[in-house]
This record gives sequence, structure tokens and C-alpha cells, in this order.
Amino acid sequence: MPTINAERLLDDLATLRTYGATGNGVVRPSLSPVDLESRTWLEERMRDAGLEAVTDGVGNVLGRSRNSGPALLMGSHSDTQPRGGWLDGAMGVIYALEVARALSEDAATAHLAVDAVSLMDEESTFLGCLGSLSMCGDLDASQEAAARNADGVALRDALVAAGYASRPRARIEPDRHIGYLEAHIEQGPHLEDTGKRVGVVTSIVGIRACRVLFHGEQNHAGTTPMARRKDAGVALFEFATRLRPIFQGLAGDATVWTFGKAVLDPGTQSIIPGFAELTVQFRDPDEPRLEAMMNALRGLAETMTGEGPVPVTVEDHRYAVVPTQMDEGFQQHLATAAERHAPDGWVRMPSAAGHDAMVIAHHLPCAMLFIPSIDGISHDFAEDSRHDDIALGCQVFADAAAAILLEAHRSA
Amino acid sequence: MPTINAERLLDDLATLRTYGATGNGVVRPSLSPVDLESRTWLEERMRDAGLEAVTDGVGNVLGRSRNSGPALLMGSHSDTQPRGGWLDGAMGVIYALEVARALSEDAATAHLAVDAVSLMDEESTFLGCLGSLSMCGDLDASQEAAARNADGVALRDALVAAGYASRPRARIEPDRHIGYLEAHIEQGPHLEDTGKRVGVVTSIVGIRACRVLFHGEQNHAGTTPMARRKDAGVALFEFATRLRPIFQGLAGDATVWTFGKAVLDPGTQSIIPGFAELTVQFRDPDEPRLEAMMNALRGLAETMTGEGPVPVTVEDHRYAVVPTQMDEGFQQHLATAAERHAPDGWVRMPSAAGHDAMVIAHHLPCAMLFIPSIDGISHDFAEDSRHDDIALGCQVFADAAAAILLEAHRSA
Repeated sequence: MPTINAERLLDDLATLRTYGATGNGVVRPSLSPVDLESRTWLEERMRDAGLEAVTDGVGNVLGRSRNSGPALLMGSHSDTQPRGGWLDGAMGVIYALEVARALSEDAATAHLAVDAVSLMDEESTFLGCLGSLSMCGDLDASQEAAARNADGVALRDALVAAGYASRPRARIEPDRHIGYLEAHIEQGPHLEDTGKRVGVVTSIVGIRACRVLFHGEQNHAGTTPMARRKDAGVALFEFATRLRPIFQGLAGDATVWTFGKAVLDPGTQSIIPGFAELTVQFRDPDEPRLEAMMNALRGLAETMTGEGPVPVTVEDHRYAVVPTQMDEGFQQHLATAAERHAPDGWVRMPSAAGHDAMVIAHHLPCAMLFIPSIDGISHDFAEDSRHDDIALGCQVFADAAAAILLEAHRSA
Repeated sequence: MPTINAERLLDDLATLRTYGATGNGVVRPSLSPVDLESRTWLEERMRDAGLEAVTDGVGNVLGRSRNSGPALLMGSHSDTQPRGGWLDGAMGVIYALEVARALSEDAATAHLAVDAVSLMDEESTFLGCLGSLSMCGDLDASQEAAARNADGVALRDALVAAGYASRPRARIEPDRHIGYLEAHIEQGPHLEDTGKRVGVVTSIVGIRACRVLFHGEQNHAGTTPMARRKDAGVALFEFATRLRPIFQGLAGDATVWTFGKAVLDPGTQSIIPGFAELTVQFRDPDEPRLEAMMNALRGLAETMTGEGPVPVTVEDHRYAVVPTQMDEGFQQHLATAAERHAPDGWVRMPSAAGHDAMVIAHHLPCAMLFIPSIDGISHDFAEDSRHDDIALGCQVFADAAAAILLEAHRSA
């Protein structure tokens, strides 16, 4: 089986980190000058690895294997959050590159085809998962035309300025690609908490979100007796407090819910809020559970409206993601490789964050591998992982990729 | 006893309403062009009533009686909220003018001294209760220097532009003024709810306010398990919900409390709030009760800090008002007059809103009379009162003023 080169892997990660390095973190948002430079470097490293490397019309850097036969698309994203860490996305891209190299260096696997990719803008600087949407043919033209970054720059203009706009856009190759594999840091504390070094992702959680609106009556905070009040803020506090045990009763091990935003209107000390708004988001790998939670939330709104004095309404947020199942066969290959290199040191787990695999899974079988995040921290300069975990994860990833491709060759 | 002229009273109120009339409401903020014009008109009306009228260095319009002997200062304010009603403040000013006229027209009371006043900026366009603070010598020079309206205009500049700045500032006259009487609309529903037409104010409620701060830990809404969260927003909802029954246990008939403002930080759907802030304001006529409520609030903050996971701290808001007791003797005179004109149609009650009397009570015995607000509405264009209630209240006010002054003459 192939053996990855841990030093080369860590060296490449360290070099990629220099593009946008800011203290321990990295500031490399999509299509920023350092992002463009990093793509030129990455394309060069892919070429060095013997891949046919191109940067496509939306900035995806694709290193296509020269081998024929069934191929695996492997990668992640190399753009970062506005204040990001050095591994979020970047690690998965360099893993793919290292797996392509390791397989090419082993006689038993040198004939296998690994296409390494850095998918543009997973982090939503302009349009979340732009690169994977484009590769899958799922990019909506009007959404693309409307996409702008926080400074108001249009995606279209940024692609022109980068020199990418006129290039062809790469596509997944259904006759060739047998699947997509993505490695990523966990971005949560589960592996660390359970003392495991590798996570085999079973699914990417679904996300539901809604705005809960409280329609009270604005009034003077001094002269309005308590019994006459229709206080939208008090109704909001009560709703959130009553929803908690309801959600706890429905929750599974992986369920999370968050009240990210609460606004009282007009929001001044001496006025009883006449209107209030609460954002509720919840995630779970199981769609029926998400549905049950949404129904329970609506039920509480109806109950409180019936009880009075403040009517409560619920508006679905357009941002709803159905849970994405990872391929069972791929998971088994990852599990076998994990057990080989970290006996009893791995676990199956859902991904609580979204990833490009969520987009690609509509078109290709997908799988993901996680390694531990120190203290569970991500989307922060402090994000980090142990170097031996980084190396271990890549070896497991390489073994699994080889096994998947060898199996495909056998059955072809 | 004197008889007020209801038609003259209502005519003057209707004329004052034309300065800044906007639909049913009035927009006449302090030192606005219409406010300045209304003060010129008011000074003229005071002069017509035989008073020595001046507008002073902060814009107080004072109509001083030419009579010697003990005098009553009577009035309120004629500035309005940004979107105010036609009676809030204005009614008390015109009542004072009408009482001065009515007493001067009756042989038995023509020798009595009523000084009518419109006190500047009770509504805090620049500096709340500016006029009464100035008349009492309680105006803080640095606060005056810093005062600006919402457009950023300095009070100092606005007084210069109005032509007031160089004028002398009127002061209460402790050797002459035996007290201050203020009439006002109730601005709440108590009189209407109890079917009464006159309220004899026993006290102006005290106000306590604080900011409650929740020190959580910001984190990813997907990857952070529920058990690991330190969610500042959830702590805020729980605090507000737990405080309610605690306050209910301490509350008297007149106690009110309000959560006017709640902010979650950073306040976006996918991030667990790391910090949250809640504003709590509470009012009661009884200072020990306010103290007990503040102690209970602090106690809950300590309890929740002990329980974890989110420490809760409390910051006193500088805006604290101690309850102000109205003069017992004056109250009795108002009660006697009320019983005469509205047998069983009056009630003693605290004022839940602040008034200039709150400032002046530190220097002179004070009393206040309320008339009903239709639907309890105030600080709104819809604010209104029945004309017969307006007339009745003024007659009660005139009777009481005459009785107080006659008593003072007897004991002098």
C-alpha cells in the first residue's frame, strides 16, 4: 500500500499557510490577492506531482491524473474565513495532493487515478460552495450574477480581474469519477473529547432555520400596568425558555440548536417592546427529526398564541439543508484504513458543519474523513491540530483511496 | 370660590396645539421653530392675564403674579415628544394660566398670587427637566455643556440661536413660593379603568435601571455540542424568565418592570452568542421595595453565575430616581376640591411617569393632579382626553390652589 510523506505534506501545508498568514491564523478570502497567488503556487505543486493542472473559470484549481480508468476526485477548499485558521479547507486540498503523489510512488497503486482539487469559495466570500456548484453544473446563473463580497465587489468583476473569467469551467466527469473524498479538520470537540484520532463521517447534518416573530403592543414602561401589557420581549424570552425542554425531548446525540439573534423593537429602556424577532437554527443528521423539531416549534408558537397576550408567528428561513448521507462502501474503506493505522482510535460520526461534499453528493458517492481540532476551535486564528494527527489522517486517507480505486478496477 | 372659564381654557389649548400640529398629534420639540413661536404666544397670553411675563435664559416662560404675599408656582411643560400628543405638558401649562385668571376674576381670591410657568425641555430633547433643574439651581454645568439633541445640535448653540442665552435665568423664590402644583394627563389607564375622573397624586414613582451582562463563549452553531456551550443568549432568556416570578413576589399594586432592550452578540444565525446584554428598568413609589427588587436581581445574577456556565454581572444604570412624595396638605386640598366637584369620582394614586414636580420637590412642597387619558395612550399622536374631564380637572385645580393660598394667608 502507498506510504504518504509526512514531511512533504506538512511542508506544503506550511507554505500554503504563508499566503495570508496573520499571526497564527490566515486571512485568505476567495479571490483576494494572496488567494490568487496561492492558486498559482498550488497549480505548480500539482504539476510537480505529475498532474495535469489548470485553474478554471471560477478559480477551481484542478490537478487531473494522467491515468485512465476509474478516478477519484479528492480535495476541499483553500479559501479561508475573514479571520480563519490554517487548516480549515487547506488540509483537505494538500491531503489530496499528497495522496496523488503517494499513490504514484507505489508500484501497486501508480496506475490509479486521483484528481486533486481546490474548490473555490466554500467559505461564502462571494457565494458559498461556488466551486463545487460550478463543477456539478448546479450553479444558478442569477445567483452568480448577484453575488458580491462584503465590500460590494461583484463576483463577476472579481473573476475578470483575476483573469479567470474567460477560462473554461471544469466539470465532474460522471463516466470517470467514481466518487469524491474530502478530508477536513473536525471543527468541533467530539474526537478530542472521546480520545479518537480519526472520524469517519456518516452524514453531513441537515439545517433548519426560522424566524419567530412576536406581535405585541408598544407602550410606556412607566404608566402601563403589568396586567395590561402585551410585551413582545417577554414573549420571546418565554418562547426560548419553553422551547428548550421540548427540543431536549426530541434531540439525538448530534442534535444542536441555536438562538443566534434576538431583537426587541424599539429596543430602548423606557418602552415596552411592541415587536420582537428570534432566530432559531437547528441541525441534525436525521431529516424526520428536523421535521419533528420544526413541528414542535410551530406547535409552541400556536400554543402561546392561544394563551395570549402576544401572538407568535413562524417564518421559515430559506436556508434549509437536508441531511446528506455519505457512501456506505467508502465509509467502510475509510474505517478499515483507520482501524489499520489507529486501532480503536477512530469513530463514525456525523459532520455538524457544511462542506463541498454536501453539494457533490447529489452527483457522486462521497465520503469524508475528520481529524481532531485542538479544543474544538475553528473559524478562528487559534485553530490548530497536532502534526501527528495530520500525518495519520493523510495515511488513512491514502489507504482508503487506494482501496476504493483498486476495488473499482477489479469490478470494472 | 373662583370659577374657571372652560371655553377660554379649551380655546387656549386649541391654539397652543396649532404650534406643531401634525394630524391629531403635535411635533413641538424643545427649541424648534414652532416651540419658540409658541413661547412668544404663551408669554403674550400670560401678559393678557395680568401676569409679569418673561421668557428666561433657558426658555422657561414665567408669568409672575403682581400680588404680594405667599405665592404658588403652577405649571408644567409645553415642549413635546418627537411624535407627541396635544395635552402632555401643554394642559398643565394652560391650567396654570387659567387658574391665575380665574383667581384674579373672583373678589375673594383676586389678592392671591399664582405664578404660571412653562418649564423647558421636560421631554429630554436636549436635557430632561432642563427648565425645572435651572429654576431650582440644580442644573449641572458640565451636563448642560454636553447636552445635544438627536441631530447633534448643542443646547448652548440652540439657546443662542433662540435669543435666550443672554437672558437671566429665573429661580424659585423660597421666601415667596409656598409650593408647586402641576396638573397632567395620567398617561396610563388607571383612572379610566376605575371609572374615576380625577387623580390626586400621592407620589411620583422611583425608577431603578440596570444592564445585566452575560459573559458566554462565542462558538460555531453547528460543531459545538449542546453540553459544551456557554451561550450568553440562552442565559439571558433564562434570567428574564426566572426574574419574573421573583419580581411578582415582591411587587405592589403599582410596581412595573420592563426589559426594554436585549442584544445578543454577534447576533447572527450560525454563531452561538458569546455576549449578551439585557436592560431591566423597574418603578415603584416605595424606595425599600425598589431596593429589595434590585437585591433580588443581583441575587439571581449571583445564583446563575454559581450554577454556570455563563457568568452574569449587573451594572447599575446612572438613571436612578428615588420616589418623590407629594405634600400631604396639598393632597388634602386637592382631595377636598375633587370630592366637591366629582363626588366619589376621584382617587389617590401614584404617578408612574416622571414629571418636573420630581425635581422641584427637593426644594418646595409639591402636588399633582391627573385627569384620565383615553385608552391610557400618551407619547403618541392618538393621545387625547375628554373635554369635560379637562374642564373638571381645571376647576378642581383652581379650587385647591385658592384653598392652599387662603390657608397660607391665614397662617402668615
